[in-house]
Amino acid sequence: MSSQLLPITLYDIPSRNAAYGNTWSPNMWKTRYALNFKGLPHKTSWVAFPDVAAKMQSIGAPPSDKAADGSPIYTCPTLSDPNPSSSSPALITDSWLIALYLDKTYPSPSPLFPASSALLQETWIEKYETLAIGPVEELLVGLVSKQLSDASIPYFVETREKAFGKKIDDFCPVGPERDAALAAMQEGLGKVAELLDKNGDGKEKLFCTGDEPVYADLVFASSLIWIKIVAEEEVWSKVKSWHGGRWERLLDAVHEKYGKVY
Amino acid sequence: MSSQLLPITLYDIPSRNAAYGNTWSPNMWKTRYALNFKGLPHKTSWVAFPDVAAKMQSIGAPPSDKAADGSPIYTCPTLSDPNPSSSSPALITDSWLIALYLDKTYPSPSPLFPASSALLQETWIEKYETLAIGPVEELLVGLVSKQLSDASIPYFVETREKAFGKKIDDFCPVGPERDAALAAMQEGLGKVAELLDKNGDGKEKLFCTGDEPVYADLVFASSLIWIKIVAEEEVWSKVKSWHGGRWERLLDAVHEKYGKVY
Repeated sequence: MSSQLLPITLYDIPSRNAAYGNTWSPNMWKTRYALNFKGLPHKTSWVAFPDVAAKMQSIGAPPSDKAADGSPIYTCPTLSDPNPSSSSPALITDSWLIALYLDKTYPSPSPLFPASSALLQETWIEKYETLAIGPVEELLVGLVSKQLSDASIPYFVETREKAFGKKIDDFCPVGPERDAALAAMQEGLGKVAELLDKNGDGKEKLFCTGDEPVYADLVFASSLIWIKIVAEEEVWSKVKSWHGGRWERLLDAVHEKYGKVY
Repeated sequence: MSSQLLPITLYDIPSRNAAYGNTWSPNMWKTRYALNFKGLPHKTSWVAFPDVAAKMQSIGAPPSDKAADGSPIYTCPTLSDPNPSSSSPALITDSWLIALYLDKTYPSPSPLFPASSALLQETWIEKYETLAIGPVEELLVGLVSKQLSDASIPYFVETREKAFGKKIDDFCPVGPERDAALAAMQEGLGKVAELLDKNGDGKEKLFCTGDEPVYADLVFASSLIWIKIVAEEEVWSKVKSWHGGRWERLLDAVHEKYGKVY
C-alpha cells in the first residue's frame, strides 16, 4: 500500500461471521477486492442495516437509487476518499461506480478496466451472472439473515420479504425447487467454463482476459465468496467439486491476493 | 499497407452490386475491415455459392462446420496467407477465427482485441446482435438473393428455404410482421445506444471502448453495411434516421477508413 495516501473509508454492513472479517455482501467484496487490487490504504466503518440511510445522509453520500415514491435509497458500499481534495472527501456509492472511480483516480499499478473495457466487462459480468448466479440468487438471499449481526436481521428480513413477495423461509425450500436451482447453476457454470477455456485455447483459463484478474474476475470471485459465506453446506460444498474444482481455484487466486479486510 | 508482405487472398462470394465492390455478406465485411484495419496487402478471389465446397477442398481449406450426417461444411470467408511459411500458406476459415489469427500473426499496428479482450468482445457482439440485428435477420436473409450473382441465386434460395423451413418470399412479409421486426430493432438499438453512451459519460460514444474501433465495432459496422446493401429502402432508410443518425455515423467512421475492396 502506498504510504503517501490517507486511508480511504469503506462503509460496510457487518455479519456475525468473524472468519471472513465480518464482511459478507458480494457488493462489498467487489469493492474490497478492488481496493486491495489497487494497493490503496483503507479502513472499514461498520453500519448496521437499519442505520445505513441516516449514516449516509450524515456524511453527505449520494443515494444509489430512488424508490417508487421518489424518495432516495441509501446503500453500501460507499467510499469516502480524502485524497483528491483537502476540503471535502470524494463520496461514491455503488460498487460499479466505485470501481470506475478507482480506475480513473488511481490508474496505477494496474487498471481494473484495461483498454477502456468497462462496457465489455459489464456485458461479460451480466452474462455469467445470468447463467450461473441467477439460478441460486433467491436461495442465497434467503440464507443471508443467518449471517447478519442482530441489529441487521429484522430490517433485512422485512425488506427482502417485501421485495420478493414471500416469506424468507420460502425463498428456496429444500426439495425439487432447490435441486432444480442447483442443476441450473451447474449447467450455467459449465457454459461459463467453456467460454473461458475457449479463450485459453482449450486449456483451463480462470480469468476472462489474461493470467491476472480484471474487475469482472473480482466480481466473479465476490459472488463465489458470497456463496461460500452464506451457503457453505447447501451450495458451496457442491460448487467447489464441479468442473474439476476450478471455481475454488478462481476464488482462492483472487482471495489470497486481494481478500484482506482492514 | 506493408510492402514487405505478400498479398493475402480472401475468398468471397460475389454479389451483382458493383457499388459495394461486389461484396455483400456481413461475415466477409468483418474480414475485409479487419484486413484493412491491420493494413495488410490482400486481394479477393471470387467463388460462386455452388462452387465454394469444391474450391475450398481444392486449396485444402478446413471446413467451418459439420452437417448432421457428419459431412464437412465449407464456407467463406476463407483466408490464404502466404507470409508465415514459405512451403504452404496458412488457411483459415470463419471470420472470428480469421480475426484471432490476424491479431496473433500481425499484432501491429493496432490490436483488434486489446488487452486480450476476445471473450469480452464476443460477449458484447452477442448482446447487441441479439438486441438489434436478431429482430430483422430473417428479413435480411430473405432479401439477399436479390443481390447475388446469377450463379449463386438458386443455391442460396434452396439452402435457406431448407434451413428456415419456409419459402424465401415469406421470410418477413410486408405488414404487421415486418413492422414488429422493425419496432423491435429500433428498441434494441436504443438499448445499445444507452449502453454505449453510459460508457462515454452520457456523450455519444460510437465505439465500445475508446475513440477508435476494436473488432466488435468492425463487426457492428459489418451488420450495418449488410443492412444498407441488402435492405436499403426497407430497413436502412429507417435505421439511419433513428437515434440522431448515430448508426450511419458509426458505419461511415468504419467504412471510410477500412472499407476498400481489393
